[in-house]
Amino acid sequence: MASIFTKIIQGEIPSHKVAENDRFIAFLDIMPLQKGHTLVVPKKEVDYLFDLEDDLLQEMIVFAKEVATKIKKTFPCNRVGMTVIGLEVPHAHIHLIPINQEKDMNFHSPKLELSSEELADIAQQLSEA
Amino acid sequence: MASIFTKIIQGEIPSHKVAENDRFIAFLDIMPLQKGHTLVVPKKEVDYLFDLEDDLLQEMIVFAKEVATKIKKTFPCNRVGMTVIGLEVPHAHIHLIPINQEKDMNFHSPKLELSSEELADIAQQLSEA
Repeated sequence: MASIFTKIIQGEIPSHKVAENDRFIAFLDIMPLQKGHTLVVPKKEVDYLFDLEDDLLQEMIVFAKEVATKIKKTFPCNRVGMTVIGLEVPHAHIHLIPINQEKDMNFHSPKLELSSEELADIAQQLSEA
Repeated sequence: MASIFTKIIQGEIPSHKVAENDRFIAFLDIMPLQKGHTLVVPKKEVDYLFDLEDDLLQEMIVFAKEVATKIKKTFPCNRVGMTVIGLEVPHAHIHLIPINQEKDMNFHSPKLELSSEELADIAQQLSEA
């Protein structure tokens, strides 16, 4: 069965898209730790990031860097933190999260509750950054 | 002033080395969240991961993948999680941490206290994996 991310990529499930090319997509995490928390996903459905072949992994990290630049421009912060946990959805993805201190990317903190309108506005700002 | 990681790279400060080539080094975090918790560092002293030029960033992620493979072989786990926080030391680095559940890479958990002998043993196992 297609992963939830493949369904997003195929447009079967809506998402707040930030960036896309033929190999990767970036969209907002709908349970964000911070405003601008974005997921970067390869269109190829691979369970674990380090199972990607080297060339795709290399393209993905540069795509992630480009998305991180958009995030930092839109949500000024000390850093855009990056995390791969890989236990939530069996489709490789990188979390990019604007942070000012370490605890801003603590996955055990309560998630922000943002409306669809707020998420849509954030995604638009990021995609235009 | 040279970063603590540059001093490690130059051998001025000892470390428990796991892997090294001409551009990158991997050594154990001495305040690990899990046994096998490793830092991957570019020899070029750049503050923030995404400030690395694309080709070096691309080589670094493949180097990290190779180190992650060693970690998974030595410390069987669900995943080798990856995190870049970037606020601790102003020299870009990737944390690689063997995890079985999300909370295994919670940076707010107490760190393991391992002796120098235990760390040396872990580093040797990893470097030979």
